[in-house]
Amino acid sequence: MSDQCDALQNLINAFTTLPSVGAKTAERYAYSIINMDRDAVMFFANSLINAKDQIHYCKVCGDFTDKDICNICSSRTSDTICVVKEPKDVRAIEKSKHYRGLYHVLHGTISPLDNKGPNDIRIKELVERVQAGDIEEVIVATNPDVEGEVTATYIAKLLKPLGIKVTRLAQGIQMGSDLQYADEITLTKAIEERRPL
Amino acid sequence: MSDQCDALQNLINAFTTLPSVGAKTAERYAYSIINMDRDAVMFFANSLINAKDQIHYCKVCGDFTDKDICNICSSRTSDTICVVKEPKDVRAIEKSKHYRGLYHVLHGTISPLDNKGPNDIRIKELVERVQAGDIEEVIVATNPDVEGEVTATYIAKLLKPLGIKVTRLAQGIQMGSDLQYADEITLTKAIEERRPL
Repeated sequence: MSDQCDALQNLINAFTTLPSVGAKTAERYAYSIINMDRDAVMFFANSLINAKDQIHYCKVCGDFTDKDICNICSSRTSDTICVVKEPKDVRAIEKSKHYRGLYHVLHGTISPLDNKGPNDIRIKELVERVQAGDIEEVIVATNPDVEGEVTATYIAKLLKPLGIKVTRLAQGIQMGSDLQYADEITLTKAIEERRPL
Repeated sequence: MSDQCDALQNLINAFTTLPSVGAKTAERYAYSIINMDRDAVMFFANSLINAKDQIHYCKVCGDFTDKDICNICSSRTSDTICVVKEPKDVRAIEKSKHYRGLYHVLHGTISPLDNKGPNDIRIKELVERVQAGDIEEVIVATNPDVEGEVTATYIAKLLKPLGIKVTRLAQGIQMGSDLQYADEITLTKAIEERRPL
């Protein structure tokens, strides 16, 4: 595209590095940048650099933070740790605004097919945290897929001997969903784990 | 979200300023930035600032450029000008790789409902270009909607007395499309403007 302007082409190329952004979408984003205030564009550029330079893992829970210890770890006292696969799962649970306990981010799940064993994710750190102090319950909120289940079982085996209550998120039909669209495995689970009214 | 990290939240907020990017997509983009190389993030940030600081309208055609006169205007000689509504239309036509003439970007169309008259878009500049020299044909490639048609008719009325051939992009059924899905107006146009084989 030698006939096109370089500054514009560079910006379009930059946007295509984002997940599932193709040429058309990148172009649309680029034009919107050109039409923004300069201040807004500077804020955007600084946010990118700051995020890259300042964000790292929290020393305690492994979530992303721009401090030594993240806001949640430094502000909450709780005897419950919720174990998740990735930082974005922390955000998802926080959005429900119901859970006020601690977190532990594994940064992955046990996945033999991808050559990922227990030592490749932050399980050792979890055991150390549990051994260090007043934790009574660990909720393993890994995804309800094969890797997530294997990881949950593994963690339960490690922690139960320490006298910790290990739980798993309830599985069943989604709130607001329609029974006819639920898949068979979900329905089977929902019937198995039915509860009295 | 005081419990979340500021640098991450700022980046997510920045991404939501892009067109049709909601909270979920912005989050996905933000996480991908954190996982990129620092060099890639710096390139991204610089592309944003450079695009904002260096891109302006080409003095001749009105397309975006980072030079005084854009690459197309400075490298092509042609007796044909293709008139479009927006810079992105230039890119669309360039992608077809068939047209090698000049462009003129109106930055809008005549639209009485939005209080936009002929003096609010770059029609005067077009007439000046045509009067200045060797232009024989002006292709009015505004969109085939009411505003686009009104603008095309207006331009034709101004330029025809100057001895300029004014044409409009052919309208009809799309290449590769299925007749049954073409709308009535398109089909009517396609029948009206049928061509001999």
